[in-house]
Amino acid sequence: MNKKFFLFFILITFFKVYLFAQSSNVLAIRKYIQANQHAVINEFVSFLSIPNIATDSVNIDRNAHFIMQAMQQRNIQQVQVLYPITTKALPALYGEILVPGATQTIVFYAHYDGQPVNPAQWATGLVPFQPKLFNASIEQNGMAIEFPATDKFFDPQWRIYARGSSDDKAGVMAILNAYDAIVKTGMKPTVNIKFFFEAEEEAGSEHLFEILQQHTALLQSDCWIICDGPIHQSGIKQVLFGARGDTHVNVTVYGSKRPLHSGHYSNWAPSPPMMLAKLLASMKDDKGKVTIKGFYDDVAPLSKAEMKALREAPSIDAQLKQELGFTEQELPGVLLADAVNIPSLNINEMQSGNVGKNASNVIPVKAEAVIDLRLVAGNDWSRQQQKVIAHIKAKGYYVTTAEPTTEERNKFPKIATVTLSGGYNAQKASMDLPIAQKIITAVQSTIPEKVVLMPTMGGSLPLYVFDKYLHAKAIVVPIANHDNNQHAENENIRLQNFWNGIETVAALMMMQ
Amino acid sequence: MNKKFFLFFILITFFKVYLFAQSSNVLAIRKYIQANQHAVINEFVSFLSIPNIATDSVNIDRNAHFIMQAMQQRNIQQVQVLYPITTKALPALYGEILVPGATQTIVFYAHYDGQPVNPAQWATGLVPFQPKLFNASIEQNGMAIEFPATDKFFDPQWRIYARGSSDDKAGVMAILNAYDAIVKTGMKPTVNIKFFFEAEEEAGSEHLFEILQQHTALLQSDCWIICDGPIHQSGIKQVLFGARGDTHVNVTVYGSKRPLHSGHYSNWAPSPPMMLAKLLASMKDDKGKVTIKGFYDDVAPLSKAEMKALREAPSIDAQLKQELGFTEQELPGVLLADAVNIPSLNINEMQSGNVGKNASNVIPVKAEAVIDLRLVAGNDWSRQQQKVIAHIKAKGYYVTTAEPTTEERNKFPKIATVTLSGGYNAQKASMDLPIAQKIITAVQSTIPEKVVLMPTMGGSLPLYVFDKYLHAKAIVVPIANHDNNQHAENENIRLQNFWNGIETVAALMMMQ
Repeated sequence: MNKKFFLFFILITFFKVYLFAQSSNVLAIRKYIQANQHAVINEFVSFLSIPNIATDSVNIDRNAHFIMQAMQQRNIQQVQVLYPITTKALPALYGEILVPGATQTIVFYAHYDGQPVNPAQWATGLVPFQPKLFNASIEQNGMAIEFPATDKFFDPQWRIYARGSSDDKAGVMAILNAYDAIVKTGMKPTVNIKFFFEAEEEAGSEHLFEILQQHTALLQSDCWIICDGPIHQSGIKQVLFGARGDTHVNVTVYGSKRPLHSGHYSNWAPSPPMMLAKLLASMKDDKGKVTIKGFYDDVAPLSKAEMKALREAPSIDAQLKQELGFTEQELPGVLLADAVNIPSLNINEMQSGNVGKNASNVIPVKAEAVIDLRLVAGNDWSRQQQKVIAHIKAKGYYVTTAEPTTEERNKFPKIATVTLSGGYNAQKASMDLPIAQKIITAVQSTIPEKVVLMPTMGGSLPLYVFDKYLHAKAIVVPIANHDNNQHAENENIRLQNFWNGIETVAALMMMQ
Repeated sequence: MNKKFFLFFILITFFKVYLFAQSSNVLAIRKYIQANQHAVINEFVSFLSIPNIATDSVNIDRNAHFIMQAMQQRNIQQVQVLYPITTKALPALYGEILVPGATQTIVFYAHYDGQPVNPAQWATGLVPFQPKLFNASIEQNGMAIEFPATDKFFDPQWRIYARGSSDDKAGVMAILNAYDAIVKTGMKPTVNIKFFFEAEEEAGSEHLFEILQQHTALLQSDCWIICDGPIHQSGIKQVLFGARGDTHVNVTVYGSKRPLHSGHYSNWAPSPPMMLAKLLASMKDDKGKVTIKGFYDDVAPLSKAEMKALREAPSIDAQLKQELGFTEQELPGVLLADAVNIPSLNINEMQSGNVGKNASNVIPVKAEAVIDLRLVAGNDWSRQQQKVIAHIKAKGYYVTTAEPTTEERNKFPKIATVTLSGGYNAQKASMDLPIAQKIITAVQSTIPEKVVLMPTMGGSLPLYVFDKYLHAKAIVVPIANHDNNQHAENENIRLQNFWNGIETVAALMMMQ
């Protein structure tokens, strides 16, 4: 592009941005948040400093108190803990704002627990619950920097590193600050707002359905908006109309009862790591397609609107592969947007023998793997597990649910212990629903680019519970940058995404 | 068998045992050791109480002092530490007994270091360097018992559990007590005896060749007898005329640079555990045969005497499979005795993703395996490694020796980092040598059953160094029970095997 044309292009772009901002209340929200950056970040950093692993109930309680206080400070009404029928569950938190004249009610959902952490795997200088400011991502050679003085601005490219920074304390903070900004700028919500913050999402949302069952009246709404997950990898905001289901199958295969000297017994004793390698390898062909019988059956076809949305999604595959450091995707020719609409089989972990300083020259006694099954609309999680078991049996394995007994060892040449986790199905809302259209319009009002619409997110959320227990729709509007290292070491949020997220939620609270 | 015939059979057996014992000096040795059981066991237990991991040089020194004192107490001459050219090595220990009129010199070798330990994997109540007495093996539901009072005997079925109890402090103690028993019973050796105790065998005998080079004159002999490893699984003593070689290949394969959420990216991001499973699975067919090109080339054919010995070896496969808890060997139809005469490929460890409490729902960034290659006569360890590398390349991998760079990641669809360990070749002595025949005769004089002769042991020992640096033969005469859990948790020695081992060594010291 020549220089004149480039300048013209820049001018047009600025004009479009100006127009879109004028056409909404976004500009007011943006100004307010910009002016209050330090207060917003301070509160966020304090929140991130409280450890939030679901197994650590003492700290989960500290998080709960922090959020309840933040709601009260914002004059949110009916602030309360929602307990389920059983009391083992960690507290879900509730608050509401009823707007005179509003005809619709929207629940804004986020979760405040985070994935388990292995501090040893975090980059040097990073501690999961000691938030640090970086001038860019670690992958882009970013460096830790001091928090700026109160008379200086935060560069929107900066990132905060901490567990939960993206997944999903950013969601909690965006919801609370969006409401705050609406009030402080003298505007008001157009819908009744219900706030719902869960504490067990990363632990499988085991009690969510009980909480919904127990509080059906309080939680009535026209739609749940789930503020969780990353925006589109193109950097453009997206709305997702569903989530994949998820379940796991744990497999252990056995050789000799006791570890054998690999010299005295190799070529003769069965090799569990080789057996497991062959078993796992048999589950996919060389083009990444799952070969388990019937694995792709049951899949509900996409609607016309969904297929159109997928065709219109920006292509990010080439850029993303470059960023992630590989050249070929697992299913050749299948774009990422399409890949998440197909059920998948992934290996979370695979293990045999001792590693590192305990490594020894033996034939290991067993080998184990955790297989993660992601499900799309139409799949049944339990049926999907059974297909994997049938495959293991078809490969000649006797399948049991416990350690093999001596009798079993003497009888069956190949033995696999298979244990099954719980799971849940995928859930989708129709893109054609009036409430869906309103949500799309609200998010669209905050950006000049076309909002990306996705039939489903790749990740899993138990969205089915909203339908099953409340007959409610659930639509996902995420906030975080796509490269946030969610579920892994070095989790982070890019500040621009956090600011944008607040604007998104504010627009949703003022949807027309 | 009817009762009369059974009694007759018992009588005949006793008569054979009586005859064979009469025909040798074994009975005198046996009586002496029986009468001195408590002193022998006390010394052994003190020895086993000193930790002996090669990386722990302080404790290795304590072991060395213990052995040197034990040699001096037995009036063994020329007791000294043999240092190699470099001084990083742990001390090998030397002593000698020159017998007037003896025309042959035999070096008795054992090693006093042990395999690394992971105490958490040992059975409840067992601590690797706190020797415990059991009334049977743990696998046979044996229980820990007190050491008997000095007026009571040790049951020969009892076992001592400790790291090094079999591999190979039993060897050190059998050698020293055999010489002691010969002297104390008024007999004398027929050969000059040299004692050689190594401290780095389990760490790869890295400096052994330097020690031999530095002390060629002192270490001249007609043969080295290696007292290490287990006797035949049938429970019958064996003589092994060689050992397999050994080397390792470490392979790591890569996917995305950063761990990815397995929901958002499954079906699209490459899966390192699946890649590794497919790569490892491609190395063997479904009948356990290695499919790597040329893997079985280079193997030197067995001699007639070796083939005869293999045909005559007692069949222990069925009993052993029952004991080890599996029904089918890796190479169908191939007996264990034959399996160790074939080069092998074994997976020592395989690892991808976090396990246990750190497990997470991600696509791991890499997967790694340690491949153990056992070699037979004719194989070259370095050439064998190169065959594995060629196979990995043939499977489409770009092979590097370091973590892949960004440039490599952007260029090659499949990347494997391959690092190679050192290694050594297999070594064999001919069964037809006169010294070999004398050794067989000596061992045969201690038992009524036919001694098992094996062209090679399955395990690896750097026997080539004796040939290369001293032009000496090396023949292996093991002591330990086969179910000693060598190289693993719960290592043990059965007392009967220890007593028998002392008799074996004494017979060798008095060979005709």
